[in-house]
Amino acid sequence: MSLLVKNATLPSGKKSDILIEDSLISKMAPSITARTEEKIDASGKIALPGLINTHTHAAMTLFRGIGEDATLHDWLAAVRAVEVKVTPRQIRAGSALATAEMIRSGTTCFNDMYFFMDEVAEAVQESGMRAVLGYSMVDMGDVGKRKSELKICEQFIKDWQGKADGRISASVPPHSLYLCSKELLAASEALSKKYSVPLHIHLSETRKEVFDCLSAHKLRPVPYLDSLGLLSSRTIAAHCVWLTKEEVRLLANRKVSASLCPVSNMKLAGGAIAPLPEIQQLGMNVSLGTDGSASNDSLSMFETMKFLALSVKNARWDATAATAQQMLFAATEGGAAALGINAGALAAGKLADIILLDARAPNLVPAHNIAANLVYSAHAGNVTDSIINGKVVMRERKLLTLDEEKVVERAQKEAERLVA
Amino acid sequence: MSLLVKNATLPSGKKSDILIEDSLISKMAPSITARTEEKIDASGKIALPGLINTHTHAAMTLFRGIGEDATLHDWLAAVRAVEVKVTPRQIRAGSALATAEMIRSGTTCFNDMYFFMDEVAEAVQESGMRAVLGYSMVDMGDVGKRKSELKICEQFIKDWQGKADGRISASVPPHSLYLCSKELLAASEALSKKYSVPLHIHLSETRKEVFDCLSAHKLRPVPYLDSLGLLSSRTIAAHCVWLTKEEVRLLANRKVSASLCPVSNMKLAGGAIAPLPEIQQLGMNVSLGTDGSASNDSLSMFETMKFLALSVKNARWDATAATAQQMLFAATEGGAAALGINAGALAAGKLADIILLDARAPNLVPAHNIAANLVYSAHAGNVTDSIINGKVVMRERKLLTLDEEKVVERAQKEAERLVA
Repeated sequence: MSLLVKNATLPSGKKSDILIEDSLISKMAPSITARTEEKIDASGKIALPGLINTHTHAAMTLFRGIGEDATLHDWLAAVRAVEVKVTPRQIRAGSALATAEMIRSGTTCFNDMYFFMDEVAEAVQESGMRAVLGYSMVDMGDVGKRKSELKICEQFIKDWQGKADGRISASVPPHSLYLCSKELLAASEALSKKYSVPLHIHLSETRKEVFDCLSAHKLRPVPYLDSLGLLSSRTIAAHCVWLTKEEVRLLANRKVSASLCPVSNMKLAGGAIAPLPEIQQLGMNVSLGTDGSASNDSLSMFETMKFLALSVKNARWDATAATAQQMLFAATEGGAAALGINAGALAAGKLADIILLDARAPNLVPAHNIAANLVYSAHAGNVTDSIINGKVVMRERKLLTLDEEKVVERAQKEAERLVA
Repeated sequence: MSLLVKNATLPSGKKSDILIEDSLISKMAPSITARTEEKIDASGKIALPGLINTHTHAAMTLFRGIGEDATLHDWLAAVRAVEVKVTPRQIRAGSALATAEMIRSGTTCFNDMYFFMDEVAEAVQESGMRAVLGYSMVDMGDVGKRKSELKICEQFIKDWQGKADGRISASVPPHSLYLCSKELLAASEALSKKYSVPLHIHLSETRKEVFDCLSAHKLRPVPYLDSLGLLSSRTIAAHCVWLTKEEVRLLANRKVSASLCPVSNMKLAGGAIAPLPEIQQLGMNVSLGTDGSASNDSLSMFETMKFLALSVKNARWDATAATAQQMLFAATEGGAAALGINAGALAAGKLADIILLDARAPNLVPAHNIAANLVYSAHAGNVTDSIINGKVVMRERKLLTLDEEKVVERAQKEAERLVA
C-alpha cells in the first residue's frame, strides 16, 4: 500500500507532501514525485499527526446522557445501574459508536480500560483505529476475584497484543488504588513488566481518593503506589488532579506519564484543575484523555485541548501558563510517548497516523497562528480526512471502514434496551 | 414566503412539524399539512431555536491568532496595534467571515459593539442574520470626543434601526465605566431611552476594573452605574464576573440582563467564574456571549454553553450548580429577552429563527437526554441547516446567502495586509 498526500499545510504554515508506504511515513518534503496506489490532494488542508486519547472507556458512549447534572453520588448510582446489566453485545455497539465519533473528531489512537474487552478489540479491529486496550481489574480485597481478574487481563494480552496489523496492543489496567488491593496492584505491575505493556490506572482524580488513601495507608496516593513499585515509564496515570508538588516530582522521576482529563474533572465538579505548570516544569510527560462519554460527554480531543489550556490559565491567573503548542504536543507526541507507540509526529519513520482539517473553514481563518486556531477554534467538524496505519479511514468526512448508519442505529437500539 | 419543516425532533424528544409564514412561525404540531413554497424534511434532525450570542465583536475574527498565550498586557498591546490601523474594508471582511462562522455554528442573532459599524451592518444585511449593532463609545473624559462619539452612535441608530426586513436593530454601547466618563455614561442612557434600544456595556470583567472603580468613585461598578441611572431592563451587561451578591441583587432588581462570556474570561486568565448560581437564584436574566475572536477564539455558542456549565460546576464543587436546560435557555430565550427580540423559542408567533442538527451524528447518539447531548456533546459541525427570519440561510451545510469561498479568501487577504 502506498499513498501520497500532496500540498498539505503544517501547523508551522509550511507546505509539505507526505509519502506513505505500508504503515509508515517514508518521506516528508515540499514536493515529492512518486508513483503511488493512492493520492490525496490536501490543498487548503492542514495536516496534523492523529490525536491520541490516552484515557477513555469507549463503550460508555451508550451511557451518554445518563445521570446528567447530578451529584457525584447520584451520577455513580445511575451509571452503575446500567453498568451492572450491560451485555457484551452492547459493549460492542457502544465501542463501534465511539470509534465512529473518534475518527470523525480526529482521534486515531485511544487508550481504553473497561470490561468485555474482546468486544472493544473487535470494534477497534473493524474501525481501522489504533488502540491500547486492557481489562480493568477490581478486586475490593477479594482473593478469588483477584485471581480471576488477573487471569482475564492476562488472557486478553495473549489474545490481542500486536493484533490487527499491529494496531491493537494490550495494557494492564488495575482500576485504581481504591478498588484494588495492594496485592492486585503489585501483581498488576508484575504482569505489565512480564509482557512489557503499559500499566494504566486512575490516580488522584478526587479529594476523597486522596483522603481515603491517607487514612487507609498513611500515605498519599503517589507515594503509596510507589511503595508497591507501580510507578515506571510503563505507567499512565489518568487524571493527576489532586497532587502535591512532591508527588509530581516523584511521578516525573519515575517517568510516569500523566493523562489529563479536564473535561471529565470539571463536569463531575471535582473542584480542582490539574497542576499542569508544575507537571511541565518538573518534566513529567503530559498526554490528554477525554474519559468516557458518561462524564464528558463528547470524545473530542479538540475540546479537551481547549478546556485544559483555558482552565489552567484561569486557575493560575496567568494566560501564559498553558500554550497552544503545549496542548498540540500533549495530544500527539505526549500521547505517543505515554503509550510507547511510534506515532504522534509527522516525520519519516513514524507510523502514518495523520488527519487533515479544512483550513478554509471560516473558524480556522485567518492563518495568523495555525496552532492557536487548532487548539482554540477548531472543532471536530473541521476534520475532513483520517489516515491510520497508512490506510485512509475517513475521506472528505465519509467513513470508509464502518457502515456508519448501521453503527449509529445499532447503538441507539442497544442504548434503548439498556434503559428499558 | 412559506416554509414547512417536517418531522423535526425537539429537545424533549417529541416530533413536530413547523409551519413558517413570512418571518414568523405560524404553527407547531405533530403533523401539519400545508401548501408551502418550500419544504424541508427534518427526519433525523433536531430542531432548536437559533442560538443568540449577546456579546461579541464580529470584525475581530481578523485578529484571531494575534497575541495568543500572552499576558493581558501583551495581548492588549498586540490587539491594539492592529485595531488602530484596521480599515473599514477590513472590518467588512472580518464581519462577513464572522457571519459565515456564526451561521455554521448555529447562531442566528448576535449583539455587537465595535466601530465602522456601517460595515458590520452591511455584512449582516448580506448574510441574512439577525443582529443588534451599536457603535462602541469611548471618551476617556474628553468633551469633544464625547460629543462626536454620541453623534456617531445616534446616526447609526437613525440609519439602521429596523433595517434589513427588521433583522437589524440598533443599540447604544458605551464601552465600559473605565473608558467612558460619567457624562458619556449618563448621555448613553438618555440616548438608549430616547430610541427605546438596548444599552450594551462591559461590566465587571476584571478585578482591576473593580478596584479602579472603587478607587476613583468610592463605589463598586454596579452601584456606580446605578448612581448614573444606567441600570434598566434595556441594559445588557457583558461579563458580570467580579460581582458581589449585593451587586447581583441590584442588577436583578433593575432587570438588567447578564451576557456571560466564560470562554473569553478563562482565556484571558481573569481568574474567576461568573456567579451563575446567585445570578439564577436572584432572578437575573442570563444570556451568553462568545466575546470577540481575539479572546476566545471561536464564535461557537455550543462551546460557550459547555464552558459555562462545566466551569460553574467545578468552581462550586457541585455538579448540579448548572444544568444543560439552563444553558439552552440562556442561549435562546435568555438571549432573546436580553435583546428584546421576539425569538428564542419554537412556538407559534415567534420569529422563525431555527436551526437543525444531525441527530444521527455519532456524538449525538444515543438519545437518552437530547438537551444534555446538545450542551455537552454537540459541536458546530453538527448544525446542518439554519433558518433566519423565515428564510433558509444554510441548507445541508451549504451557505445560501454568502459566497463562502470569496468571504474566506477576502478575510484571509485583508488579515495578511493588516499584519504586513
